[in-house]
Amino acid sequence: MADKVFITCAVTGSAPMPHHPNFPFRPDHVAAEALAAAEAGAAIIHLHVRDRDTGVPSQALDDYREVVGLIRAKNDAVILNVTTGPGCTWMQSEEDPAVAGPGTLMFTAERRLEHILDLKPDMCTLDICTMQLWGGVAINLDPMITKMGHMIQDAGVMPEIECFEAGDFVFADDLMAKGALPKNAPFSFVLGTKYGLPATTEAMTYCKNQIPRGARWTGFGVSRHSFPMAAQAVLLGGNVRVGFEDTIYLRRGQIANDNASLVHWGVDLVERLGGEIASVEETRELLGLAH
Amino acid sequence: MADKVFITCAVTGSAPMPHHPNFPFRPDHVAAEALAAAEAGAAIIHLHVRDRDTGVPSQALDDYREVVGLIRAKNDAVILNVTTGPGCTWMQSEEDPAVAGPGTLMFTAERRLEHILDLKPDMCTLDICTMQLWGGVAINLDPMITKMGHMIQDAGVMPEIECFEAGDFVFADDLMAKGALPKNAPFSFVLGTKYGLPATTEAMTYCKNQIPRGARWTGFGVSRHSFPMAAQAVLLGGNVRVGFEDTIYLRRGQIANDNASLVHWGVDLVERLGGEIASVEETRELLGLAH
Amino acid sequence: MADKVFITCAVTGSAPMPHHPNFPFRPDHVAAEALAAAEAGAAIIHLHVRDRDTGVPSQALDDYREVVGLIRAKNDAVILNVTTGPGCTWMQSEEDPAVAGPGTLMFTAERRLEHILDLKPDMCTLDICTMQLWGGVAINLDPMITKMGHMIQDAGVMPEIECFEAGDFVFADDLMAKGALPKNAPFSFVLGTKYGLPATTEAMTYCKNQIPRGARWTGFGVSRHSFPMAAQAVLLGGNVRVGFEDTIYLRRGQIANDNASLVHWGVDLVERLGGEIASVEETRELLGLAH
Amino acid sequence: MADKVFITCAVTGSAPMPHHPNFPFRPDHVAAEALAAAEAGAAIIHLHVRDRDTGVPSQALDDYREVVGLIRAKNDAVILNVTTGPGCTWMQSEEDPAVAGPGTLMFTAERRLEHILDLKPDMCTLDICTMQLWGGVAINLDPMITKMGHMIQDAGVMPEIECFEAGDFVFADDLMAKGALPKNAPFSFVLGTKYGLPATTEAMTYCKNQIPRGARWTGFGVSRHSFPMAAQAVLLGGNVRVGFEDTIYLRRGQIANDNASLVHWGVDLVERLGGEIASVEETRELLGLAH
Repeated sequence: MADKVFITCAVTGSAPMPHHPNFPFRPDHVAAEALAAAEAGAAIIHLHVRDRDTGVPSQALDDYREVVGLIRAKNDAVILNVTTGPGCTWMQSEEDPAVAGPGTLMFTAERRLEHILDLKPDMCTLDICTMQLWGGVAINLDPMITKMGHMIQDAGVMPEIECFEAGDFVFADDLMAKGALPKNAPFSFVLGTKYGLPATTEAMTYCKNQIPRGARWTGFGVSRHSFPMAAQAVLLGGNVRVGFEDTIYLRRGQIANDNASLVHWGVDLVERLGGEIASVEETRELLGLAH
Repeated sequence: MADKVFITCAVTGSAPMPHHPNFPFRPDHVAAEALAAAEAGAAIIHLHVRDRDTGVPSQALDDYREVVGLIRAKNDAVILNVTTGPGCTWMQSEEDPAVAGPGTLMFTAERRLEHILDLKPDMCTLDICTMQLWGGVAINLDPMITKMGHMIQDAGVMPEIECFEAGDFVFADDLMAKGALPKNAPFSFVLGTKYGLPATTEAMTYCKNQIPRGARWTGFGVSRHSFPMAAQAVLLGGNVRVGFEDTIYLRRGQIANDNASLVHWGVDLVERLGGEIASVEETRELLGLAH
Repeated sequence: MADKVFITCAVTGSAPMPHHPNFPFRPDHVAAEALAAAEAGAAIIHLHVRDRDTGVPSQALDDYREVVGLIRAKNDAVILNVTTGPGCTWMQSEEDPAVAGPGTLMFTAERRLEHILDLKPDMCTLDICTMQLWGGVAINLDPMITKMGHMIQDAGVMPEIECFEAGDFVFADDLMAKGALPKNAPFSFVLGTKYGLPATTEAMTYCKNQIPRGARWTGFGVSRHSFPMAAQAVLLGGNVRVGFEDTIYLRRGQIANDNASLVHWGVDLVERLGGEIASVEETRELLGLAH
Repeated sequence: MADKVFITCAVTGSAPMPHHPNFPFRPDHVAAEALAAAEAGAAIIHLHVRDRDTGVPSQALDDYREVVGLIRAKNDAVILNVTTGPGCTWMQSEEDPAVAGPGTLMFTAERRLEHILDLKPDMCTLDICTMQLWGGVAINLDPMITKMGHMIQDAGVMPEIECFEAGDFVFADDLMAKGALPKNAPFSFVLGTKYGLPATTEAMTYCKNQIPRGARWTGFGVSRHSFPMAAQAVLLGGNVRVGFEDTIYLRRGQIANDNASLVHWGVDLVERLGGEIASVEETRELLGLAH
């Protein structure tokens, strides 16, 4: 187990919104949830944005600006880790298997990084997977990721490498070797997607053994796998992610009021298992981020 | 280690042909290599076809018919395992990341299985991966694979499930659960592709632990990983694949004369490691194939 | 994760007593703690006895009779799992490395099982390790264990096979093969001793993969490893053991009032991780014990 | 896989001699086999001595002196790795489980190291296991091993840490932490004993993950496990041990003429699997031994 464990709170995500009376999607609500999560012990806030009226995922620069601005107005310490996920979804048409169908959302590198280059948050996620994902294909090929990796580094932002599959670690090695990713980038293991690495002890152990010696990592499971995999990450020396992006439940049948409740759950879990929570400052130190 | 180990020889594949004076691509040559490989101890022949003039991969029904016919004319016992791989390659265009570019070869299920339904070989491979593969994307989504799985079963052919990635095992479970794949289908682990599961002991051990209890499996590595992974498969209780599709080398710097030489290498390896080679009849028994 | 998880409470053990105002050692206190632990959700009580005046471990038949009698007077359902551990400790003398020194306690099979044959509890533990243990040697060689295994079975008691080391699983296989242990015996993995299998995810995963398909198992860690390994056992599909034998802490710096507090901790852990607690009846079913 | 793989040849061992017309036990024969093994590609010779008349294991200083002298007279480069194994065997008497019975051979540290302090070979083995072993108990407790470790280091000899069990790695960590073993000592994994770590891929992978980062290691299996585990060691990045101590067979049913034949087998194996054999000089470099 790591001595100090940091917690990321993923406050809203970009999946279809679950039925929950307090699920945040308006910019002010997302920011408020983020601030409360930080208060509760999350050193890192993972941000997506949603349309303020409908809650559908947004890729509007203005939405990112507003949420980040509202958070930074009240808390300039917490680490912001902003998504670059939207724009790699390809759906197969029914007519021709080579042609994109409805639901496809494929961006250029410039479009995917517009808000990152503008806002220069501490960190941004970088999905490097190409895989069947929730009925479509996530496409993140070498030329695209290489370009994005250089742009992110040039902006002074630390990428968190999101790995969904075993091959992603091989790809990450090659990307690091050619300078497209920094050698000290942290990793995130996303377990339990259909169809990537499953949310099991074996899969997380496998992941842990694939990354560079000393690399920091967070392991988490989607949906009902959120809590078991949070515990597993702590036991394997990794860090924890919680939040409404992953689940709205505290345990079977018990809905969490808000993101902060999930952070409290995570803090309690870490402490029960014998670990200590890393503060924002300690987390910046662990990740090599500016203070 | 399994008591009896069967050997598959993959005689030609569909990659660009290496420089080798005896690399088989004409139908009669492919058939001759297959027959010699069977003579040398391969219980299963894995078949692709190539254009008789240029050697580029063929998807012509006539080519499949000719090769299979030439083999069956002299050997009606050896197990034929015919590829269904061609037709799932999508290349990203440089102009628009959502649009297919040059090199794309995407078929419908009917087109991918035309030769299988016609020839009804003992087995056929079924790639179930969606992933970055050699610069493009292999796309094999659930609707396509479900349809192919039913068509293959309806034709009385045994699919061999080709797994390139960790998520493929989760997908295979779901496919078996809904009847799209037979529960006794054998597996093949394809290790060392860019970018799938790597050719390591850890990855093959992981794979072995993901398949149904008692399922038969073959593990192999591409290119220079062919021999190490053949040994690893034997040590883990799996079966062996060799052949020009994977490598033309016997060891570093030493080119194999023909596929049969590689089969001899495999036979020797199995016996040195304490195993015994399964005959064609024993392999049919192990795989639940008709005699 | 298993659907139903059972909890064993090890109420007193036989290690030197820690400083704790409520550590049970008098027979009535041990029985009261056992009953409260059962009330709190433990389906199995693991019992040692201690001298009523000094608290040093006892091997007196009368002490076992008294504790078991007091429990059964109030609860005839809870599963009793009585130790057979005392009597396998050999300390090396300083003068001659072949000769036993002070602290040695080596019994014959008959003496080690006296209370088991007398009381015929539902279960008894059977340590099958030979190893360096807390400065001495635990000696449990094949002839001794084979004899004990037959005597336990003849008494109609179910042995729980305690494994401290990797070789214990090989030994257990051989013992089962010759009938010295029943093939459906449950296993317990004891992790973190000096010097046996460590209290790590890797070690517990290794253990899990060594036992017969379908065998029930409990994994636990000694001392400060108690809680992390309880969580790990749940995540790997095993069952949980808690109790003052393993730790008196609820978390770092926080002492548990009693065994029941630790059972409550275990119940909460299982439920948070998505599992359900097995009742006594369900546990009897899972273990193949008489109702 | 490691780039360079070194081979140890264990020429005679101390087990009961198998029926073999050329099994070496006389000092001149042992030395001749060692020299031929070095000639065949073994960079390290692992030495035991036997009585020149009966072949039973010897612990006579003169025998060690004679064998080492005969080797060094003709080859002053090859690395000599001399056993310190004899003297840790305790057999349980039938009358009293605390008392040593026939077959017990327990030495003091001074007696176990007499020949090492006298001959100061490049290396010596150091068994750190306490376990059931071939019907008896191998006893190597902390005080004894700590003392031996210091004496070996003071003599300028490099100990090779022989691990038979999972707990041995925890013990080795503690020994290194207190200076009883050098932090750069190489490890040897002895797999397949009754009853230690089994000769499986999983067990060797487990071992590999327990040793300090960058530590050199050799993995081998006893008896029929010799060849499979030699291959497994190469595949996992370790080094190879062969020799009559482990097996007299080249493959099932085929007896090796001499130790050199087994070394040739090992050389061929390494090369087939894509590795290269380390020379004596390269091996000294890898192990940090004087040239």
